[in-house]
Amino acid sequence: MKKYNYLKLHPWEIIEEGFHANKVTSSESLFSIGNGYMGQRANFEESYSGETFRGSYIAGVYYPDRTKVGWWKIGYPDFFAKVLNSPNWIGIELNINNQDFDLNKCSRIEKFKRVLNLKEGFYLRSFEAVLKDKTRVFIESKRFLSMARKDIGMIRYKIKPINKKCSIKLKSYIDGDVANQDSNWDEQFWKHEGKETKDNFAALKSKTLKTSYKVCTFMHNELFLNNEIIREKPKIEIKKNKISHTFSYEVDSNKSLSIVKCGGYVSSIRHSSVNFNKTYELSKEALDLGFNFLLNEQKNEWKKIWENSDVLINGDVKAQQAIRYNIFQLNQTYTGEDERLNIGPKGFTGEKYGGGTYWDTEAFCFPFYLATKGSLAARNLLRYRYNHLEKAIENSQKLGFGNGAALYPMVTMNGEECHNEWEITFEEIHRNGAIAYAIFYYENFTNDKSYIPKYGLEVLIGISRFWKQRLSFSEEKNKYVLLGITGPNEYENNVNNNWYTNYIAKWCLNYSVVQVQNVREKYMTDYKRIKKKTGLSEIEIKKWKEIYQNIYMPYDSKKQVYLQQEGFLDKELKFVDEIPMNERPINQNWSWDKILRSPYIKQADVLQGFYFFEDDFTREELRRNFEFYEPFTVHESSLSACVHSILASRLYKKQKAYQFFLNASRLDLDDYNKEVMEGLHITSMGGAWMAISKGFGGMKISNGVFSFNPKLPPKWTSLSFKVNFDGSILTVMINKKETTFELTGDRPINLISSGKKITVQPKKHIT
Amino acid sequence: MKKYNYLKLHPWEIIEEGFHANKVTSSESLFSIGNGYMGQRANFEESYSGETFRGSYIAGVYYPDRTKVGWWKIGYPDFFAKVLNSPNWIGIELNINNQDFDLNKCSRIEKFKRVLNLKEGFYLRSFEAVLKDKTRVFIESKRFLSMARKDIGMIRYKIKPINKKCSIKLKSYIDGDVANQDSNWDEQFWKHEGKETKDNFAALKSKTLKTSYKVCTFMHNELFLNNEIIREKPKIEIKKNKISHTFSYEVDSNKSLSIVKCGGYVSSIRHSSVNFNKTYELSKEALDLGFNFLLNEQKNEWKKIWENSDVLINGDVKAQQAIRYNIFQLNQTYTGEDERLNIGPKGFTGEKYGGGTYWDTEAFCFPFYLATKGSLAARNLLRYRYNHLEKAIENSQKLGFGNGAALYPMVTMNGEECHNEWEITFEEIHRNGAIAYAIFYYENFTNDKSYIPKYGLEVLIGISRFWKQRLSFSEEKNKYVLLGITGPNEYENNVNNNWYTNYIAKWCLNYSVVQVQNVREKYMTDYKRIKKKTGLSEIEIKKWKEIYQNIYMPYDSKKQVYLQQEGFLDKELKFVDEIPMNERPINQNWSWDKILRSPYIKQADVLQGFYFFEDDFTREELRRNFEFYEPFTVHESSLSACVHSILASRLYKKQKAYQFFLNASRLDLDDYNKEVMEGLHITSMGGAWMAISKGFGGMKISNGVFSFNPKLPPKWTSLSFKVNFDGSILTVMINKKETTFELTGDRPINLISSGKKITVQPKKHIT
Repeated sequence: MKKYNYLKLHPWEIIEEGFHANKVTSSESLFSIGNGYMGQRANFEESYSGETFRGSYIAGVYYPDRTKVGWWKIGYPDFFAKVLNSPNWIGIELNINNQDFDLNKCSRIEKFKRVLNLKEGFYLRSFEAVLKDKTRVFIESKRFLSMARKDIGMIRYKIKPINKKCSIKLKSYIDGDVANQDSNWDEQFWKHEGKETKDNFAALKSKTLKTSYKVCTFMHNELFLNNEIIREKPKIEIKKNKISHTFSYEVDSNKSLSIVKCGGYVSSIRHSSVNFNKTYELSKEALDLGFNFLLNEQKNEWKKIWENSDVLINGDVKAQQAIRYNIFQLNQTYTGEDERLNIGPKGFTGEKYGGGTYWDTEAFCFPFYLATKGSLAARNLLRYRYNHLEKAIENSQKLGFGNGAALYPMVTMNGEECHNEWEITFEEIHRNGAIAYAIFYYENFTNDKSYIPKYGLEVLIGISRFWKQRLSFSEEKNKYVLLGITGPNEYENNVNNNWYTNYIAKWCLNYSVVQVQNVREKYMTDYKRIKKKTGLSEIEIKKWKEIYQNIYMPYDSKKQVYLQQEGFLDKELKFVDEIPMNERPINQNWSWDKILRSPYIKQADVLQGFYFFEDDFTREELRRNFEFYEPFTVHESSLSACVHSILASRLYKKQKAYQFFLNASRLDLDDYNKEVMEGLHITSMGGAWMAISKGFGGMKISNGVFSFNPKLPPKWTSLSFKVNFDGSILTVMINKKETTFELTGDRPINLISSGKKITVQPKKHIT
Repeated sequence: MKKYNYLKLHPWEIIEEGFHANKVTSSESLFSIGNGYMGQRANFEESYSGETFRGSYIAGVYYPDRTKVGWWKIGYPDFFAKVLNSPNWIGIELNINNQDFDLNKCSRIEKFKRVLNLKEGFYLRSFEAVLKDKTRVFIESKRFLSMARKDIGMIRYKIKPINKKCSIKLKSYIDGDVANQDSNWDEQFWKHEGKETKDNFAALKSKTLKTSYKVCTFMHNELFLNNEIIREKPKIEIKKNKISHTFSYEVDSNKSLSIVKCGGYVSSIRHSSVNFNKTYELSKEALDLGFNFLLNEQKNEWKKIWENSDVLINGDVKAQQAIRYNIFQLNQTYTGEDERLNIGPKGFTGEKYGGGTYWDTEAFCFPFYLATKGSLAARNLLRYRYNHLEKAIENSQKLGFGNGAALYPMVTMNGEECHNEWEITFEEIHRNGAIAYAIFYYENFTNDKSYIPKYGLEVLIGISRFWKQRLSFSEEKNKYVLLGITGPNEYENNVNNNWYTNYIAKWCLNYSVVQVQNVREKYMTDYKRIKKKTGLSEIEIKKWKEIYQNIYMPYDSKKQVYLQQEGFLDKELKFVDEIPMNERPINQNWSWDKILRSPYIKQADVLQGFYFFEDDFTREELRRNFEFYEPFTVHESSLSACVHSILASRLYKKQKAYQFFLNASRLDLDDYNKEVMEGLHITSMGGAWMAISKGFGGMKISNGVFSFNPKLPPKWTSLSFKVNFDGSILTVMINKKETTFELTGDRPINLISSGKKITVQPKKHIT
């Protein structure tokens, strides 16, 4: 695939130099900012008549969009929950010498530059523009969404006339006339209920239809000449869903006029009451502290984040930039603080996938948040699913299951299934396994034994009940089988005995039996409560045991590989490199039946099992299966490259591992799939981090013991990454010769480094 | 299933007695009338405020309704063609003594009766009603769509005051404000372009949007007191899309006021120009000839139809009524005259399935039309597909096939695929086999050798090219396989090696090879033309041979049955009678995944192959497969019972065959599926006729020789049915003791009757 990269390399920044009119929507995605509670695409503040996709989103504020479907099937959900494109508060219309400013209509644009500063968490844009009447101006906009004050974003928008005195009008506004691009039926999602303006403040109170979230979108403006505040009363204009404050000023050349705009959302997600006064106070305080003060706060917040999560790569700025970008975007999307929120595949950078939660979270993001934010963040992610257990039980009831069987949704906002393709919604049930696996992973990583008796076991019971009912007995095979399955490789639908799904079902049942015994032995009070709540019985547990001991696992003894599903070997087993280039990606070129009967694999399927259950297989088995399946894999899911990178590392295929890592980590920066304009692949960024820690770092946790078995890509002179244990941070430093560790905190850690047991002593902090 | 039948039994009539308000929409379907070019539901002429589904349709006039789909797949069609609900010409608003007449608002309704006269082809409705002011009137409406004059329908609507003199207003109208219930996006389908009214005539000129069919809907009214014409000028009212003529008259009690309304459509389907004058002349002529004259024409037309197709059953009025009803509706839907038209699953009685053509035609209707209308009608049906060959090649190209491979559509109006479910559209490809089978059946039945060289071979080549490309080679099995298939049993999707599809693919390739050889030997001119047109090569033919000799056929040697698909025996093989009654039909109660992994069969699948290819299997094989699959069959397709009836007959399971026959033939009359209000199951009626001729009559054609091996249901004292050879009609008369034949025409026929070769001599006609 030809890559067209218009961005510059830099260890701490994403940089665009020169104005690329055909890349505006791409850059809008790439330079997105967020603070975990809100996020927005990097739209221009001023009006732009070229192609643009304006988007600003508030975490947890969604609308249940009525299902669109060709052929209804029983069990389909009535709606698809969608994170809402929210009122625009960043808008500043600019008029210079009576010309409306529009980057699409300037005579010349010079020195255009965008910078996303990963270290300090802001977005900068600057350029010189020559207008039709030859007026030349310098414009600079610096913007961030405050990590310290989650309701607030700040913009400093500066205009400096260069060749003549300018009469400048700045029309700063908030605008409620927004709509989701991905709306099914062009329904209204918002109802605007009130407007207020006071001094330089204005706000729009809105309610989401159906879900009744309250959101107050606000702005508060201050004007500066050079750095001197100008106490100007704006001209106020109020339209139906839009309020604007216009400031007019004559500015001599080489003086600069700036508007500092504090804006954002006060929403019922974060506030028990949503009113104008509170909003006014919040924004007033921010302005009184000043743009620079808040920017400093922002730097400090990001400093803390990086102290817990930075990955340092020497010898490869491309990789360095990519992994930091990934970590940056993951932190912009989810901060780990709120058990009601989660990580949508596109975060707040686009609307595809509706902003819902997928198994991506547990399978690809959970290890990142756990290792860089600590157990509280990870528990919040687990609790998210625990809180949805009742809904998961309802979801499975809709498909005819009972007795507390829980099927976690393919896509969800509030726990209810949102997806409506039978082959996915009803059959891609391996997702249930990932939910259980995250519980296991958490316990294994943290050694926190309290979560399972308190919460986890109920989830495990629901999941195991589902597997028990979903597995059926084949007289023919004298084994339990899973019929009608879609595995992680969605390029196969409705197959029988997908090995990965069978394997994780077996593992879930086994793990649940062990955990039930454990809780019964050690947490009797919890056990009694759970037994009463769930009606768990001995017969049930016995049945789970009998089942997991007798699940069919498709295997080919000639090739000595596990079969992705029964019948896989009946396919025409041509490798991916035989597909003509002009037919790639196949999902944009082939009809679905052609994809289905091909051997081509969208993302790791059998190999996903090898990734999850590393200890269950020998390296030789891994090699055989990797070498069998990888040549059929088209990696057309953003979640494919990371797993393959990790497995390639495990097999010491260092160059392959490196290439997969670049594919995973630079997917958006290099826009491999030519779709970055739709938004970033946030969840796959968690996979890129795993490729670092678990792949190149060779991190593994077995029975609570960490081991590191690094395989550095040839190009890299050194790599370091961090693993957060509550209260301590372990920095793993790998170079060509050795692996060393640095530890903060109070207690030593025992670990295995390249096969040797060692104890890492904490370094005393000097503050 | 509990049956609630509110209809009376009668050998030649469908009768409803008493007014059933909750059955109005059902009766609207059941009493539908049509003449092959138009058809309409049995709506009341007068206004009705109760539940009603008004529908009137014109054959071949469709609108391409933009596809509605949740998740788009490459290869999906852009539209679903739909037969249009057309302007209403039957409407007559009735006002009596200043009260708008509405059957839903009368004080009493007595002696309500509907009759559908199958023998003579008209629909009658009569009743006495008592209005709110105690006025009692008798009303009778007789209606038919003329078989002799395809543009024209006639209504005689009579009101007789019983207890007092009445002031009666009759507002006869045509109304273009109609819409399809099944519209995807509530788009407008019609554009009305002009209105005209002249004397007692009025017309509305309309055009279908996108397809630009022109339709002139018209009415022409005459008023009668008793039987004397009244030359009254109506009051004319013209609204946007509606024209009405109102006649007011004072009528003494026991005198009757009648309006005779001639109406219908002059459309560009039947006329090169569509104008008001032609329409005026046509309707004027009809009125001048008079209602009774046209009714007499109608009786004569139906007399001819029945002479060619009547089935006589003695000893079972239920069966007698049903089979005549089936034959009647088939004739109302398609007359065999027009190669552009076909048989929609609901005919003109509803909108489900869009009025499109399915494989139903070839598999379930073709034998009926061939045997009761002769070879011309059958050739028209074959030509319909021949004319669509180019589109079938385009359809397959959309799925990535090439080199002239033809995939006939699942649903179509003009040859383009309309359906958009990947598991059906892309995978239910056995339909291609049925198209080829109809060609074979035609040739075998008629011994007409001219069709294949002229037309049929090109279709066979296209179909065989498709099979060749769609089959793939399994190294594992060392056989050709068909992966990713949905068979006739749509309760399995995306399976591998569906036996039926593999079998018919093999048969198609074999038959094509034979026919290519035959044409090359005997029709050199045609062969050269076809070779040039299609680029057919020797290598190709050789490859077809190699393939059909090596197609994998799933078989279980323990149970000695063919496997519906690979893996069928892995299912939990519980019989249908284990499904709780409240979960039937499963397609209205179970989620799709549950249906898919169950063993339950929607309609004959393996058994469809046994039905088609009777000569290829022993009776013992049939018995084993029938007895294996039938207990898993839920018969939730209207096309299931007929095939099972035939096979049960072949196995001398007479009672079972009889029950299946009743299920097939009385599906609508007894409303087994509680959905008759949506429309009738027209194509399944063809199957009911096959259950008579091929099942009970034991008719078989092997190498052009007809044999009859009757198995009369115990209840029947005799059965007779007709088989039409061009110019001769063979009547097969079966009673408990013997089978006799009567033949019209000039040449004798050799046939096999219960195993004995006989020659039937024609009986001289006395005219």
